[in-house]
Amino acid sequence: MPTRYTSDVSGMSTIQQHTYDNGLTLLVEPMPGVQSVGMAMLLPGGTADEPADQLGLYSVLCEMLHRGAGDRDARAHSEALDQLGVKRGTDVRTQHVRLDASILSERLPTALPLLFDMIRRPHLSDEGFGPARELALQAIEALEDEPQQKVMIELKQRHLPEPFGRSSLGRRKDLQQLTAAQVRAGFAERSVSQGAILSLAGAVDFETTRDQVGELLGDWSGSASEAVESASAERGTHHVPAESAQQHIGVAYDALPENDPMSMTQRVGIAVLSGGMSGRLFTEVREKRGLCYAVAAQYAATRDRGSVFGYAGTTTQRAAETLEVMVAELKRVCDGVDEDEFQRAIVGLKSRVVMQGESTSARANALANDFYVFGRPRALEEVAAEIDAVSLDGLNQFLDRNRPDSMTVLNIGSEPLSIPTT
Amino acid sequence: MPTRYTSDVSGMSTIQQHTYDNGLTLLVEPMPGVQSVGMAMLLPGGTADEPADQLGLYSVLCEMLHRGAGDRDARAHSEALDQLGVKRGTDVRTQHVRLDASILSERLPTALPLLFDMIRRPHLSDEGFGPARELALQAIEALEDEPQQKVMIELKQRHLPEPFGRSSLGRRKDLQQLTAAQVRAGFAERSVSQGAILSLAGAVDFETTRDQVGELLGDWSGSASEAVESASAERGTHHVPAESAQQHIGVAYDALPENDPMSMTQRVGIAVLSGGMSGRLFTEVREKRGLCYAVAAQYAATRDRGSVFGYAGTTTQRAAETLEVMVAELKRVCDGVDEDEFQRAIVGLKSRVVMQGESTSARANALANDFYVFGRPRALEEVAAEIDAVSLDGLNQFLDRNRPDSMTVLNIGSEPLSIPTT
Repeated sequence: MPTRYTSDVSGMSTIQQHTYDNGLTLLVEPMPGVQSVGMAMLLPGGTADEPADQLGLYSVLCEMLHRGAGDRDARAHSEALDQLGVKRGTDVRTQHVRLDASILSERLPTALPLLFDMIRRPHLSDEGFGPARELALQAIEALEDEPQQKVMIELKQRHLPEPFGRSSLGRRKDLQQLTAAQVRAGFAERSVSQGAILSLAGAVDFETTRDQVGELLGDWSGSASEAVESASAERGTHHVPAESAQQHIGVAYDALPENDPMSMTQRVGIAVLSGGMSGRLFTEVREKRGLCYAVAAQYAATRDRGSVFGYAGTTTQRAAETLEVMVAELKRVCDGVDEDEFQRAIVGLKSRVVMQGESTSARANALANDFYVFGRPRALEEVAAEIDAVSLDGLNQFLDRNRPDSMTVLNIGSEPLSIPTT
Repeated sequence: MPTRYTSDVSGMSTIQQHTYDNGLTLLVEPMPGVQSVGMAMLLPGGTADEPADQLGLYSVLCEMLHRGAGDRDARAHSEALDQLGVKRGTDVRTQHVRLDASILSERLPTALPLLFDMIRRPHLSDEGFGPARELALQAIEALEDEPQQKVMIELKQRHLPEPFGRSSLGRRKDLQQLTAAQVRAGFAERSVSQGAILSLAGAVDFETTRDQVGELLGDWSGSASEAVESASAERGTHHVPAESAQQHIGVAYDALPENDPMSMTQRVGIAVLSGGMSGRLFTEVREKRGLCYAVAAQYAATRDRGSVFGYAGTTTQRAAETLEVMVAELKRVCDGVDEDEFQRAIVGLKSRVVMQGESTSARANALANDFYVFGRPRALEEVAAEIDAVSLDGLNQFLDRNRPDSMTVLNIGSEPLSIPTT
């Protein structure tokens, strides 16, 4: 029997759910007025599950999933999907390998077998392995020319405990020694039905899809263990030298995991800092002082852990002041938020929920993420109600009791930086 | 009387249009099943219209439009828009300054006066000028750490004739001498109703909006001249030295302007090269040879001119071969396309049209761009019909007759590159 979630708030969205005998969960949300379908598939295995000397394993796997599957070699498979106009991509996250796709509704039944071949019957051939590993190595090298990305990757590695801070790009020396057989073994371990999540949103019918998915994936089986913490986080203050007139600054501190009952309160607090153009960070660091071109803070939470990551990019000359002002604002918000900025944060978050809810792809990904985090999908109206349930008093109490006690800091640039002691 | 465009293809979309006495054009496309409204406003003045010694003028203007307007100072104006959950941005293009916004439908009537204040009554104060210019200068400096962007900016400058290849970021020495008075003069010249285009798509009613816009912008006036070519393009082969293990390679050649009757044929040809994962560039350069992580070609056309821009990012060691293979593919496509890849290109383009048509913001921007290019907006079904009207024979004839005769090449990296003479 499918479970139905109909919102109490406005009754507009209906999400339907089915869990197959093999443990695969299907989530379907029909959306009015669209012709496309967004699809997301999460496999239970990510960077945290890579063997400690095979970092980058799932990055290479993601590349190889596009290189032949089922009865089709790389070229035939790729052409068959393009013939249907299917936009698709694969990526690896901390706990999952993700396949996502956008498809016009009428072509969904023809596209699904091709997409499922990728996660059930990929060829993972020796022939495909060479270029795939080469590209994974190049992605690491290319990061040297993308310091804005690199700073956040390096920061996350130092802020989170092993194995949860790993870069999805992997590690050069591991990739150099990786073999096709290891990729095949890693795939076999993680292409399992138990814990896999498939979500579709848009112009899609629940019953038809449930039956087709059942036929195509009913014989899937297997389960996989979840990664556990193996070493505590490094934390501290770090400098990655680079010949540049720019400084890229990252700051991290602990926050609630997403399934904590107070996580929406945490999210509202970050929205006060960085939610709109009148957010405190943008106003204080960028607008008033013109200290840096880009500044933002982000609440990055998954099921079991959460962090706030702050970023600023500026010149070497302004870097110390930028870091000082940014950290001061991250702390000052805990002294209290006023009614007006609270209301702006609430309105901003709710508007974004509605706008993201209009994209079939964003919606499919939100459903799958919700199921992983909360064990069930949330209707848009439910998310909106959660935002509305946060009160100004509740927020201020929360902020007062959850001051960022210690921050991990990392900068890329010519000079080391650190938070001034006050 | 509003003009109505109802598609002959499926009759689903209805775009309505009104031109006010002062020359401002309003385009409205209601979309089913959405709560948001996408808005785009184009002012007739862009980088091509900047005085030759004030490059970056409109970049600074765009920054200053957010710093106080109408009865509100910078902070009050920004807070008022955030209070309504309005997501907005400004940018400068070759021929236009653009303001775009996403708004929930119910708040549109309250948001419009605030948004129109930005383009009618911005304060452009001396106080706001300092940080705005500072940020514009920082954006130029930050480009040094974004070579993937920089290569395309430098390439465009050399490939297009003055003043059409200018960078939206401007020029350092001009920005250093720019004054607030010059920004105010530049604004006065370009905030004119004649040639201005306002488009809204989503949960929006035509009559109500037409009346409100008439009330708010009816007293607007003025017109502006269009930029003309002042110097021919530099073209040739260029190397921008950089200390990096990466090479960023850009290639450009002439293509049709977008309002040419054959421009859709040109677009299909580029889709064969770079339209999907089975596109020739992706297959030949990335998949088969593993030469580079990123490779793409893009048909970049505006009303009066068009170009194809190709990009590849790779290591120094593979750069020469990457350029050689990329250029060979750009030329080889003119020898002919087969039925299968033609069909994939058509399906891919049509799918993208439908998917982009589901975003209120993308749709509003497409309407405004269409009006500038074609003098009228195109319904989605009309664009789809234009794609369908391209035949394989027509494409192959076109490609055979429009071989890229000379290419502009620019690379950023440690070694100069050039196209091998064959």
